[in-house]
Amino acid sequence: MKCSVYIATSADGYIATPDGSVDWLHSAGNQQADMGFQAYMISVDCMIMGRKCMEMIASFNLTPEQWPYGDMPIMVLSNTIKTPPENLRGKVEMYSGDINLLIGKLESDGYKSAYIDGGSTITSFINLQLINEMTITQAPMLLGEGLPLFGKINHPVTLQDAQSRVFANDFTQVKYKVNYS
Amino acid sequence: MKCSVYIATSADGYIATPDGSVDWLHSAGNQQADMGFQAYMISVDCMIMGRKCMEMIASFNLTPEQWPYGDMPIMVLSNTIKTPPENLRGKVEMYSGDINLLIGKLESDGYKSAYIDGGSTITSFINLQLINEMTITQAPMLLGEGLPLFGKINHPVTLQDAQSRVFANDFTQVKYKVNYS
Repeated sequence: MKCSVYIATSADGYIATPDGSVDWLHSAGNQQADMGFQAYMISVDCMIMGRKCMEMIASFNLTPEQWPYGDMPIMVLSNTIKTPPENLRGKVEMYSGDINLLIGKLESDGYKSAYIDGGSTITSFINLQLINEMTITQAPMLLGEGLPLFGKINHPVTLQDAQSRVFANDFTQVKYKVNYS
Repeated sequence: MKCSVYIATSADGYIATPDGSVDWLHSAGNQQADMGFQAYMISVDCMIMGRKCMEMIASFNLTPEQWPYGDMPIMVLSNTIKTPPENLRGKVEMYSGDINLLIGKLESDGYKSAYIDGGSTITSFINLQLINEMTITQAPMLLGEGLPLFGKINHPVTLQDAQSRVFANDFTQVKYKVNYS
């Protein structure tokens, strides 16, 4: 199964402030532009995210109109939480266990292209050599500190077929294929 | 005086591995392309770098043909070292003291545009609101850990007038104006 990433960072590579907040991302203007998100969403048919990512989304208390993921099945990885927050019930399914088994199950259910979200989850998938493509959108601001997008990587990762775009709101975006050889 | 940055990082924002090495940058292919460096060099008339940056350059033992900075005056900031390494004598001048005084002295000597280099030095200059423009070139690889380009920033920094380029070697480059308001 193809696994890909579509995520925003600050220009210095953080996905959140040290306390986990992404308010800076909204104030930097990402609400005002699609920046390829709808096209990306059409390219994926399921989503796998980490618990912290889910809790961040839960904290937004999105209305049905604001919900950005349509009817796409969303698996949430957690070894500690068995049921999702009240406002995400029916929208996400918790999963605890081996990631490769989860991928195999999704494949046998007919899914072909997974959207992988959340810093720890993305790093885990990279370390399992599962991420094939990444689209990283950088907000035009420096945080100076925070939670980095990537954690410790256990083998060399090279990126290929770079594409870059710049948007009218000064966000920049790079898209890469991921190579583990 | 205009102060600007032209620096390379990994795609995850590190300027060096945890031990300070930049070998990965050379193996990623930056030797094979100019990526705007000569045009940038024409736009600056002096250089200010940190001690670690100087020691990294000294470790390369560059031949006169390899020396990338021409006859440009290079000031090296250090509170601990008073004389440069043997192989940089006559090429760099050590400076210890207030950065704004150094900028004032360079301005009174007629310099108009400084190339600021080295992670700690760049962060210091940003915190003094002295950096006006940054060109950041990202190598197509993930290091997963290392020395981040930016250290702790003491006030909000927003970036404007984003431009982006992608090179045939899959390096990507963004250029920003820096705004401190």
